[in-house]
Amino acid sequence: MQSIRFFSDNAATVAAPVMDAIIAANQSDMAYDSDKWSQKLDAIFSELFGTDVTAHWAVTGTAANALSLSAICPPFGGVLCSQDAHVQTDEGGAPEFYTGGSKLLLVPGEGAKITPEALKTRAEAIADSVHMVQPHAVTITNSTELGQVYTPEETAAIGAVAREKGLRFHLDGARFANAVAALGCNPADLTWKAGVDLMSFGFTKNGAMAAEAIVFFDRELAAHNKRRRKRAGHLLSKGRFIAAQIEAMLKNDLWLDLARSSNTVAKRIAEAVDPKRHAYPVKANEVFLFISMEERAELRKQGFVFYDWGHDKIRLVASWDQPEHEVVALEKALKAL
Amino acid sequence: MQSIRFFSDNAATVAAPVMDAIIAANQSDMAYDSDKWSQKLDAIFSELFGTDVTAHWAVTGTAANALSLSAICPPFGGVLCSQDAHVQTDEGGAPEFYTGGSKLLLVPGEGAKITPEALKTRAEAIADSVHMVQPHAVTITNSTELGQVYTPEETAAIGAVAREKGLRFHLDGARFANAVAALGCNPADLTWKAGVDLMSFGFTKNGAMAAEAIVFFDRELAAHNKRRRKRAGHLLSKGRFIAAQIEAMLKNDLWLDLARSSNTVAKRIAEAVDPKRHAYPVKANEVFLFISMEERAELRKQGFVFYDWGHDKIRLVASWDQPEHEVVALEKALKAL
Amino acid sequence: MQSIRFFSDNAATVAAPVMDAIIAANQSDMAYDSDKWSQKLDAIFSELFGTDVTAHWAVTGTAANALSLSAICPPFGGVLCSQDAHVQTDEGGAPEFYTGGSKLLLVPGEGAKITPEALKTRAEAIADSVHMVQPHAVTITNSTELGQVYTPEETAAIGAVAREKGLRFHLDGARFANAVAALGCNPADLTWKAGVDLMSFGFTKNGAMAAEAIVFFDRELAAHNKRRRKRAGHLLSKGRFIAAQIEAMLKNDLWLDLARSSNTVAKRIAEAVDPKRHAYPVKANEVFLFISMEERAELRKQGFVFYDWGHDKIRLVASWDQPEHEVVALEKALKAL
Amino acid sequence: MQSIRFFSDNAATVAAPVMDAIIAANQSDMAYDSDKWSQKLDAIFSELFGTDVTAHWAVTGTAANALSLSAICPPFGGVLCSQDAHVQTDEGGAPEFYTGGSKLLLVPGEGAKITPEALKTRAEAIADSVHMVQPHAVTITNSTELGQVYTPEETAAIGAVAREKGLRFHLDGARFANAVAALGCNPADLTWKAGVDLMSFGFTKNGAMAAEAIVFFDRELAAHNKRRRKRAGHLLSKGRFIAAQIEAMLKNDLWLDLARSSNTVAKRIAEAVDPKRHAYPVKANEVFLFISMEERAELRKQGFVFYDWGHDKIRLVASWDQPEHEVVALEKALKAL
Repeated sequence: MQSIRFFSDNAATVAAPVMDAIIAANQSDMAYDSDKWSQKLDAIFSELFGTDVTAHWAVTGTAANALSLSAICPPFGGVLCSQDAHVQTDEGGAPEFYTGGSKLLLVPGEGAKITPEALKTRAEAIADSVHMVQPHAVTITNSTELGQVYTPEETAAIGAVAREKGLRFHLDGARFANAVAALGCNPADLTWKAGVDLMSFGFTKNGAMAAEAIVFFDRELAAHNKRRRKRAGHLLSKGRFIAAQIEAMLKNDLWLDLARSSNTVAKRIAEAVDPKRHAYPVKANEVFLFISMEERAELRKQGFVFYDWGHDKIRLVASWDQPEHEVVALEKALKAL
Repeated sequence: MQSIRFFSDNAATVAAPVMDAIIAANQSDMAYDSDKWSQKLDAIFSELFGTDVTAHWAVTGTAANALSLSAICPPFGGVLCSQDAHVQTDEGGAPEFYTGGSKLLLVPGEGAKITPEALKTRAEAIADSVHMVQPHAVTITNSTELGQVYTPEETAAIGAVAREKGLRFHLDGARFANAVAALGCNPADLTWKAGVDLMSFGFTKNGAMAAEAIVFFDRELAAHNKRRRKRAGHLLSKGRFIAAQIEAMLKNDLWLDLARSSNTVAKRIAEAVDPKRHAYPVKANEVFLFISMEERAELRKQGFVFYDWGHDKIRLVASWDQPEHEVVALEKALKAL
Repeated sequence: MQSIRFFSDNAATVAAPVMDAIIAANQSDMAYDSDKWSQKLDAIFSELFGTDVTAHWAVTGTAANALSLSAICPPFGGVLCSQDAHVQTDEGGAPEFYTGGSKLLLVPGEGAKITPEALKTRAEAIADSVHMVQPHAVTITNSTELGQVYTPEETAAIGAVAREKGLRFHLDGARFANAVAALGCNPADLTWKAGVDLMSFGFTKNGAMAAEAIVFFDRELAAHNKRRRKRAGHLLSKGRFIAAQIEAMLKNDLWLDLARSSNTVAKRIAEAVDPKRHAYPVKANEVFLFISMEERAELRKQGFVFYDWGHDKIRLVASWDQPEHEVVALEKALKAL
Repeated sequence: MQSIRFFSDNAATVAAPVMDAIIAANQSDMAYDSDKWSQKLDAIFSELFGTDVTAHWAVTGTAANALSLSAICPPFGGVLCSQDAHVQTDEGGAPEFYTGGSKLLLVPGEGAKITPEALKTRAEAIADSVHMVQPHAVTITNSTELGQVYTPEETAAIGAVAREKGLRFHLDGARFANAVAALGCNPADLTWKAGVDLMSFGFTKNGAMAAEAIVFFDRELAAHNKRRRKRAGHLLSKGRFIAAQIEAMLKNDLWLDLARSSNTVAKRIAEAVDPKRHAYPVKANEVFLFISMEERAELRKQGFVFYDWGHDKIRLVASWDQPEHEVVALEKALKAL
């Protein structure tokens, strides 16, 4: 039996234009990020965001996030984030490693989102004492670990609290494409116009081979990033192969097309089940359903591969390249439950 | 004018069989290193070395080295190495970062090589006192930063000192292929049979896109490496593209063929100049020449790109894909000096 | 107006026998911990606990805790603790610093205590995945940050979970004396007999000048502690002055007498107010009371110094040397509210 | 037989005025460094140095040095120092720990001193490349590990190089008193007037129990030191006992009187031997002599305790409280060799 993969978008195939770009980059050039592809990153992202930015490539979202946080939080500081944020739950301690031992300061909230109010309450509960780790930054994820999105207004409201409290503002955009595609808004409105200082911009889950970018809207924050990246062993010698992927993803809005594709699949899956089964509204490309143990076994018997999400839920993630027959099969199987 | 690159082997193109393997790996599979390519690594390297090993992929030599050292040296310990070792001079502090603040304990020696005697002397100069950082490991590079090689006997002699002093033994094999090709020996003789506990096995400089392996001859040392790798942001989600490169490099001795090719170019360059100009004997794919400032200017005017090595020397590195006309041009230019 | 200090026991005076011991230690001896006082620590604590232990001095509870945790948790691991534990809330990130970036994994619970059930639930919620920081240890505080105590049975129940889950078990005993005095039990029953592997034994809050001990019941855990202590700048050159304090504190049960004294004061304070005002039962030397803002102002006007504990509570801590007139004054002031 | 200690000044007794000050501080006050003694430190040191400074206490020289370096060097940076500096050879890796993994960049030189020329040469050998750890600071020790002193002019020359190269300048003053006493100069001339940004000012070796200060001449460098100190477990709760020691040491030039005393003893020892035996000129309170193994055995048989310094030398350190009969005995023994 063929396995039908809905466990994650992170193992999907590489989109053809990206693979073509990789092949085209197979020519001699300068090492590290002195090649002509890497040298274009600032310009490409500046155009995308409509403002001058500095952009550095990375090969994983964990590295992009951890490097970002190390630029905005000292070893003795803390970073406010959702209690369900990827940096807290799924990065194996990378933020603590890269920052030299800072603390993540958890904010409660539904759907792995934080509200401005909850953020403010958490920040204000920390006395300005030498005994308590002080918050230096806040990070949010859009779309979130639980498939929710922050609108431009919601992002700006977080940004306002950050400014008020003297916090730097980072956006984990591992699935930024899915958020932008879902909201139909301008990337600028979800980032620098809403007060975001720097972001991790993900491409790997969305059709690249291994390509992420750290985009510095506050360009001064990029000052030491190349040193930190090298020190972390993340300065690839043939960086052109990473930069070329990014260029291909951004060209002709490929990133948005691919994200729309996975979002659409998620919507179809969502619509195939009784709304009461939805743990969270389906906003991007992730679907969380209340499915009993017996039902899971039934689905797995049919070849579906997915993660359990606690005792009562499962997670289904749609990929950009999800074959039509797999979607149809899942729709049918879910309806039959 | 076309630039003719002899600055490093690290920006060379990707060999065709490697690129083919990458393209062939573009199919859906499990994430991280649960895919079928990654799952084969242990077997492939075990066969190559004629002993059971554990092997994990990485994307840079710096990461492979730093992860390796973190497996054999605690934060409060030290690692003995050549004063000219790559880990000391060119990794931006990665060993210190990954080990949590250990110290590199420098051993003097010619050609970035260390002798068993010098190693022993350095180790014995450190009193067993709580005030002094104690050595826990030794690392050597083969071929070295200065293009020299350790023979199996020389490696075994280092291994003997390591055993005597209770030190773990790491081999930085960023250019291991060049050493094996130059010595014409069995990989086992340069590694586990000589007492090496773990190694960084490099492919990127030798025709891969971004692929290195940490090979654990003492398999217990691998116990925490996957956690450390994840924590460092080095667990790529589409690991199959890394593993596939390695498989292609090792298939039909491609790695040795490519290394022989760059070694041969280096020999030709070496023979094009007066032996007196040689700073070190040419053993692998690097050539260090005494060249005056005026002569350098002349070479650069002709389009040659290379590094200055201190005030009196230059470094020329041959790549596996160095075009014949570039070699001929360099031979001619050097003879004309 | 004289200030009447109930803000903490950590600024109390030094008990006369301790000061006498310091003065008596002012003679030439060996440096660091080679002096005759430091050399006695193992024996003194072994006698106290009725088992062979290794004991090292320290000068702060934060250092003792952080060194302890670094002995039982690797940089990539986690330590389970109460969400209100001192290591989490009041050590400025010291555990993260000393362990090299580990995570504290918070367990909910009343009175800064954790139950075996809550501990187990929290531990089991962490999948054995490379993406999630794995728990390596658990730490509890006795008496707790909120003045509660763990009985020998409760401690043993935590110890049983620790054993079952393969966790090391640390006890933060900054106020261990208050717990032992309150429970009237044997120190062994609250520690090694209940599965505790190592503890921080506090004396500073209880009449010493600056003296804590790390007591290793599992003596192998002490293997690297002297190196870690030195590396942290905590190896005092005249260690005899620390060891002499500890010896004086343990002689003739001075530590228990002083703890009984502060516990008694706390009981008197507790009895001076309506039981409805008690946020937690008063078990040791700390009293948490629901006191309105107006009432606090009134108390402060009378010279009482204490901490606010959130918006609705205050904390009163009794010291070993609390003068009778201060206790009487507080009793009177509280009754008058 | 009585042992006659010349192994170090770090285990000497506490001077009577210091012990009196400790006893006098045994009264209730605020915790940490909010007490009246700690609050005076800035003023006391500002008066001593004739400029406004910020001063924080610490309990060991290692902590003072490591905290200092963490204020001037990021985790990815390096600190230039003598190859024989205490931070490099005798602090168990504390600088690497506190800075989060920076590197010490060693400068050769006689007597553990560095010259401006050697410093400049070493700094300039480091290319401004992302691969190489960049120097951010320089630290010197006065008097040095080998008993030498930097004059105001020599210090200023180092300061000039630091300024030229954009390096922060730290002074390890574990034996600053011995240097000032030897040179008879103003403390200001050896510090801020010579470009020193911050220093570790030692008192423990010179008659205190455990008291050092970090003096920030550039007061902005003190910004995070209290957080770092807390995080390192070095914020003692009864800080008044540390501050009181410092106040007593500085009162009526006690620190200089005690240093003169140990310097004088060193001079007498020096004069008791043939000048040819001197490994270094005796400038402060340390004497390094060429003494054969047989002669060492003879000295030890007579009860003298001292360190071997390599194979050919011994180190004799004079303490402030060295009894006259011990000095006479050593003079006699050395003359008899």
